[in-house]
Amino acid sequence: MLTSARNHFAGKVTRIKPGAVNDEVELELSGGTRIVAIVTRQSVEHLGLSEHDDAIALIKASHVIVAVDNGPMKLSARNQLAGTISRIVPGAVNTEVVIDLAGGNSVAAIITNASAEELQLTQGSAATAIFKASSVILAVAG
Amino acid sequence: MLTSARNHFAGKVTRIKPGAVNDEVELELSGGTRIVAIVTRQSVEHLGLSEHDDAIALIKASHVIVAVDNGPMKLSARNQLAGTISRIVPGAVNTEVVIDLAGGNSVAAIITNASAEELQLTQGSAATAIFKASSVILAVAG
Amino acid sequence: MLTSARNHFAGKVTRIKPGAVNDEVELELSGGTRIVAIVTRQSVEHLGLSEHDDAIALIKASHVIVAVDNGPMKLSARNQLAGTISRIVPGAVNTEVVIDLAGGNSVAAIITNASAEELQLTQGSAATAIFKASSVILAVAG
Repeated sequence: MLTSARNHFAGKVTRIKPGAVNDEVELELSGGTRIVAIVTRQSVEHLGLSEHDDAIALIKASHVIVAVDNGPMKLSARNQLAGTISRIVPGAVNTEVVIDLAGGNSVAAIITNASAEELQLTQGSAATAIFKASSVILAVAG
Repeated sequence: MLTSARNHFAGKVTRIKPGAVNDEVELELSGGTRIVAIVTRQSVEHLGLSEHDDAIALIKASHVIVAVDNGPMKLSARNQLAGTISRIVPGAVNTEVVIDLAGGNSVAAIITNASAEELQLTQGSAATAIFKASSVILAVAG
Repeated sequence: MLTSARNHFAGKVTRIKPGAVNDEVELELSGGTRIVAIVTRQSVEHLGLSEHDDAIALIKASHVIVAVDNGPMKLSARNQLAGTISRIVPGAVNTEVVIDLAGGNSVAAIITNASAEELQLTQGSAATAIFKASSVILAVAG
């Protein structure tokens, strides 16, 4: 299966924290980056996920927020991947921003033009890709 | 109330699985398709939802991922609706894809142009609309 | 930290309802509006959030649904902010809609052009911005 989710990261399951309805699953990518996903308990069972298993994290570009450092602020979003902006593609309403991460991965984000202008994003500048654990879909080779 | 959520599916509640904060609600559409929603427990109470009740599932097009079959892969996303692509509308950054489902329903997805090209989507070809249970909003006639 | 999330609302934490994996956090804005967020329990601990603390709610414009009143319908979405449309910016695929709220806040939504046309949105008309508690990211000054 090939999906339209712009962001997919291969890793290994390092932790599964069970809940009544939702489980929290942590994935470690090859570069050491950790991604946290919230998926239903039934999905974890359906995928047969256990610790040390290979898995893929999928995140839609429209679920990714771009942040630039501007003084201290802490966010509840579990996934905050720092990198460098490698591409900016403006549209009529939305702008696509690609952030290269250490370890060879990159993250695409779709943000509004107004936000892109407000943040004064430029190629080569530092930025952080932020997404909630609930925005992550997990996949395993079936 | 009329909403901008492009996708709305009328069905009947077939199961409610309670959690501490979130409940999992399953809806069966007329064609037999099942949709799973994660909503807060308080919302289930506010809507007065019980099994066998009529309800509507709303999903924003920007929350829908499009997948094409390309070998075995299992996804954690609880909602995976297979169908046929009936419409592709490209924009500057995003493309709108409409997938017709069996039973007369259709699902709209907004994906990036880069993804649309990578998946080589064409009208008439098979595709699956994928969205997380947490992307579904439930509605009832008040 | 400055983020691309178009919508940010400063408020005070009025309630934290703990779950096994996710907590539900309620924020009251200065105008009295309440916003509900679902974030992981670990995030609440990481942010050190307690009742009466100052916090900011961030919501991406692409997670906001626009609704117009058209007879009774109840939605599961916990956040439903009524206001007046102040701006409509159409693109090739998506339209940006800004809704001014009582108390000086405003909410931006990105919806498909098809939805904008179907809802017949016009500047100055009443509309409601709707988003799920799971779409909200919380922030605190670090």
